[in-house]
Amino acid sequence: MSVATIPHPLDNLSADEIRRATAIVRKERGNDTYIFNSIALKEPSKDLMMPFLGWDTSVPKPTKIEREAFLVLQDRPSGLVHEIIVSLTQDKITSWIKKQGVQPTLHIGEMLEAEENLIKDPRVIEECRKLGITDMKQVFIDPWGVGYHESIKGRRLMQALVYMRTSPDDNQYAHPLDFNPIYDVNEKKVIDIIVAKRRNSKFERPTIPQENHHFLPEHLGEETLRKDLKPIQIIQPEGVSFTIRGQQLDWQKWNMHLSFNYREGLVINNVNYRDMDGTLRPLFYRVSLAEMVVPYANPYKPYNHKMAFDVGEYGLGNLTNSLELGCDCVGSIYYMDAVLADMKGEPWIIPKAICIHEEDTGLLFKHTDYRTGKAHSARSRRLVISHIVTAANYDYGLYYYFYQDGTFQYEVKATGELNTQVLAVDEDAAPYGTMVAPQIDAQHHQHLFSMRIDPMIDGRNNSVAETDVYASPHPVGHPQNMVGNAFSPYTKIFNNTDEAQTDASLEKHRTWKIINESKIHPYAKTPVGFKLHSANTPPLLAKPGSIAYERARFASRTLWVTPYNPDQLFPGGFYCYQSEPSDNLGLPQWTKEVKNVRNTDIVLWLTFGITHVPRVEDFPIMPVEMCGWSARAANFFIGNPGIDLPAGNKTTSRNAYAPADAKACCGKTNL
Amino acid sequence: MSVATIPHPLDNLSADEIRRATAIVRKERGNDTYIFNSIALKEPSKDLMMPFLGWDTSVPKPTKIEREAFLVLQDRPSGLVHEIIVSLTQDKITSWIKKQGVQPTLHIGEMLEAEENLIKDPRVIEECRKLGITDMKQVFIDPWGVGYHESIKGRRLMQALVYMRTSPDDNQYAHPLDFNPIYDVNEKKVIDIIVAKRRNSKFERPTIPQENHHFLPEHLGEETLRKDLKPIQIIQPEGVSFTIRGQQLDWQKWNMHLSFNYREGLVINNVNYRDMDGTLRPLFYRVSLAEMVVPYANPYKPYNHKMAFDVGEYGLGNLTNSLELGCDCVGSIYYMDAVLADMKGEPWIIPKAICIHEEDTGLLFKHTDYRTGKAHSARSRRLVISHIVTAANYDYGLYYYFYQDGTFQYEVKATGELNTQVLAVDEDAAPYGTMVAPQIDAQHHQHLFSMRIDPMIDGRNNSVAETDVYASPHPVGHPQNMVGNAFSPYTKIFNNTDEAQTDASLEKHRTWKIINESKIHPYAKTPVGFKLHSANTPPLLAKPGSIAYERARFASRTLWVTPYNPDQLFPGGFYCYQSEPSDNLGLPQWTKEVKNVRNTDIVLWLTFGITHVPRVEDFPIMPVEMCGWSARAANFFIGNPGIDLPAGNKTTSRNAYAPADAKACCGKTNL
Repeated sequence: MSVATIPHPLDNLSADEIRRATAIVRKERGNDTYIFNSIALKEPSKDLMMPFLGWDTSVPKPTKIEREAFLVLQDRPSGLVHEIIVSLTQDKITSWIKKQGVQPTLHIGEMLEAEENLIKDPRVIEECRKLGITDMKQVFIDPWGVGYHESIKGRRLMQALVYMRTSPDDNQYAHPLDFNPIYDVNEKKVIDIIVAKRRNSKFERPTIPQENHHFLPEHLGEETLRKDLKPIQIIQPEGVSFTIRGQQLDWQKWNMHLSFNYREGLVINNVNYRDMDGTLRPLFYRVSLAEMVVPYANPYKPYNHKMAFDVGEYGLGNLTNSLELGCDCVGSIYYMDAVLADMKGEPWIIPKAICIHEEDTGLLFKHTDYRTGKAHSARSRRLVISHIVTAANYDYGLYYYFYQDGTFQYEVKATGELNTQVLAVDEDAAPYGTMVAPQIDAQHHQHLFSMRIDPMIDGRNNSVAETDVYASPHPVGHPQNMVGNAFSPYTKIFNNTDEAQTDASLEKHRTWKIINESKIHPYAKTPVGFKLHSANTPPLLAKPGSIAYERARFASRTLWVTPYNPDQLFPGGFYCYQSEPSDNLGLPQWTKEVKNVRNTDIVLWLTFGITHVPRVEDFPIMPVEMCGWSARAANFFIGNPGIDLPAGNKTTSRNAYAPADAKACCGKTNL
Repeated sequence: MSVATIPHPLDNLSADEIRRATAIVRKERGNDTYIFNSIALKEPSKDLMMPFLGWDTSVPKPTKIEREAFLVLQDRPSGLVHEIIVSLTQDKITSWIKKQGVQPTLHIGEMLEAEENLIKDPRVIEECRKLGITDMKQVFIDPWGVGYHESIKGRRLMQALVYMRTSPDDNQYAHPLDFNPIYDVNEKKVIDIIVAKRRNSKFERPTIPQENHHFLPEHLGEETLRKDLKPIQIIQPEGVSFTIRGQQLDWQKWNMHLSFNYREGLVINNVNYRDMDGTLRPLFYRVSLAEMVVPYANPYKPYNHKMAFDVGEYGLGNLTNSLELGCDCVGSIYYMDAVLADMKGEPWIIPKAICIHEEDTGLLFKHTDYRTGKAHSARSRRLVISHIVTAANYDYGLYYYFYQDGTFQYEVKATGELNTQVLAVDEDAAPYGTMVAPQIDAQHHQHLFSMRIDPMIDGRNNSVAETDVYASPHPVGHPQNMVGNAFSPYTKIFNNTDEAQTDASLEKHRTWKIINESKIHPYAKTPVGFKLHSANTPPLLAKPGSIAYERARFASRTLWVTPYNPDQLFPGGFYCYQSEPSDNLGLPQWTKEVKNVRNTDIVLWLTFGITHVPRVEDFPIMPVEMCGWSARAANFFIGNPGIDLPAGNKTTSRNAYAPADAKACCGKTNL
């Protein structure tokens, strides 16, 4: 389809490669009772990739890089997990490890299968009947990972959140039921039912609210929709400014490679920037959203098991929407499909999974000489690479932004629907939730994301510096602080993994910089770097010792830095599904022994997110709430890298007329 | 020009009204030696406006509201200030107060006059000669308020920051000179020259860097500019969705009145929202940027006098740019002119001062049913009302945003040029600055803004609630915290001005809500309100007791709440220019006595901003750095107020092709 018919070593597996890998495994295993849980590229080693990409010229550039697939299989009903590496280059299996007692990511196939089985289960049917529901076609089930449950040893469990719909496309979150079945995925059966106890009600079981809370236009009625919104068209008559070769993208001096997998969704590789003199400067080897956790605040069963790890438990790739032109992305849009695998090991294609486009995003810079009125301004154009994932009730837009001033930004837009629970007619939601509609409890929670940032700022070996800003230690009136205004930045560079566990601090004006200590900026006289900052860094509220804290320790600090290790990709562990709190998988394990992170190949893990106390306005569908982080060049370039932008283009804007009635003259009014 | 020929009582003065007010004053004073410092509307009392606007139905709606002008004159050379109220309704002066020893806002006329005089001053000429500059046409002077200077009693002073240009439109900030004249504005003469001492140099005076640092395309050379940016057109073929009657604006259920004055620039009045059932709900009586301070970090003379109060010392209205179509605002743009007054009391019009337009701003909400793929999404359109001000070197874009989900947001984009100082060839900038080019010191500073927010959330009497989120006090394993996940919000309502002085807290997930305690939300069971939040709230670094801290006390807390008082508009004082630190003008004075702020007519003062440690990339022209705040409906509406938006419009987007070469098939590539 594109010129590049030889895959780039970081390209994810094609449909053909998936078929080949599956066939090789089936040749060995036959059609035993197992499922293909995931099939993804086994990424080649960084030691090969750095010279391949041209960033390491101390060794010859490899001419051939082995192409490998990493498959995870799970036997049913035993749950035995198989980690298989298939070399597509050699057409054979090169590694086969079996593991018992670990749970890989849920597959969407398992979720759909679970729902089918759950609504046939006699105990589920009986609970529904008690609540007045006899038509099981009205019952819908969101299967969540169980988080942690006492009886999970060796079993692959889901907790099922149960809802009713009054019509096929009804908003089920308006009618939550009060019990959670616990379901064994491999044995395909319900093993327990947990009924939520009423806490302050004269009723033992609540009534199920019948009132509908619609948001689909067909339910609201087209006549109720706003009609006074005039269209906006965003058009690029000469096409887009970016070019794509295979999975490589070029735009406004940025170059990068995009890949996609079942778990992290979109991965950005090999981000580099062409400086003014033509030099290509390496910036980021690999960036991805590597984990997240959504811990809920209500301490009572079954609510206290809600702590979704949407990356490791469900897979962002698996949850990705097929996007629709004009709705999700507007303008001139370039789409990429995603290729995943289904439970039979067949390619599963999500068409239009990734949206690439550019947007005008306002002023980039402006200055006016106030004496003469002479002004120069440049508009900011940004490149947007995004996908949207649906995790049952919630939807998350995930956006990578690149700007013309060397800024790289990541943003999450949380939307979709609140998770809802039912209240009896005489109950309150406080203090652990908000009643967003009669009997509808939206419980407080956090969304905490862990970004894995593998930098190569001007080279492979980097360090991380933490800069706080303090007022002068000298009192007002001191010769070095006569009028009391003095302040300055204090920077410390992290030497090891202990020092490099740190938190955001508003009081200290704290920022971090990823630096290359072997390259000193000629003017600023400090190592070149990129400054990392997030305005959305709430601390994790679950206490040390709690299930959520211990399983999601990554979220207990704003920033971690570890030495690069190709097996360390997921900060809550590879098998984070039902991970044992005391195992402290992921970052805590990796940092148990103190290791050097100074002037070496490092990886950063940045935690950011939202503490969400729901409001009525988040229901029935939630207006986007944003959070994210940015990386900005900081004493890296010789000046503003966007200085060579042409002035804002006057030719395509128009004066608008906005008369309140036909007689009004229009265009301008004096203030 | 518009249908509304009778001014709205909040409309700023027209050119005619300014002429009339001036004429009435000249009749009394003749053409004595005085200047008109400012002429602005004297806003009618809120007691009249609330019934006039329809928010208070307990008294009859006033049929006629007196139209008044407030003029500030200053005599020269005595500096005597005259505060004159002219009733335009009665055609006469109704109040005349004289004040000595206070300094009103600088007028742009005074600044231009100062520069003319300064470059003729023999001592200035001599200092330039010492630095090797003999052609005074090369010398340019930015006249700043002096901040605070020992000899200011009774004198109106400026500190002059001196630069050289190698050509008329050269970037002068590449060639800073090392001395500051102190200039008496009323006597029109230099009274002192402060030469910045070298601290660690073998030179007594620095050489003036000759290297140019250009950013104007004509200087960079058109051939060096990027040519690979394809145009984006933003078009509204059916016109805009907002309508304007006089200075009143309607858009997507929002209604508001806009006014403009010399000091605050754009003021938004009477913000209200039409709810689903047609009820008009009052939200904000008046919102404006009422003060700001930019305190610098270097403790040595003359740098330690730099603490610009760009609102009170210069006037945001006075500093407003005339905007250019396609550069500052893109799309279908509606402009409003601003009418101010010059030093002769004549109308001074800034054409196209304010830009009003709407923008697509991405997703507003989306949900997909993962079982069926059925999705609904709505795009977010926002209304943007903005102006751009130039304060000597810096430029600030000031943006009010209104969204379709009931969100109101304010954003400052800081751009333009860093303030620069000169270093000798052997000097460093650290620890109080960054060397952004050879010999160019960009000193660390903060930008702190004080937003005056006068709410009327569902009525005149409001309260402010502060909500922090805490983990449960119970340990892990406690019956009320079995798995350790519990957390909940804790809310306290401020009773008085002492309690209501507070700071942002990241650790406590702190937010504020402006509430109406007489209106309880039927679902959430809490008072209806709007949640206030800023992600940009760095503390003031200047110490208590410092000049900057004492003059800008408003910036020492993130939030203040005071009872409404029509004379309390400027939190650093009306006469903040050269204000005496020990006078603690503005908020400290107003809160010296404890007053009630509970369930009454209140005003909030929100401090937000940026701690700016300059980077090389900020030079020679700075890519925008953003800060701001938002007010979001929080248990105010019955659900998502944007629910009635039509689905995203598919008809105007296009698939893009981005081939790297002609042979490549285009449109899609498999990931």
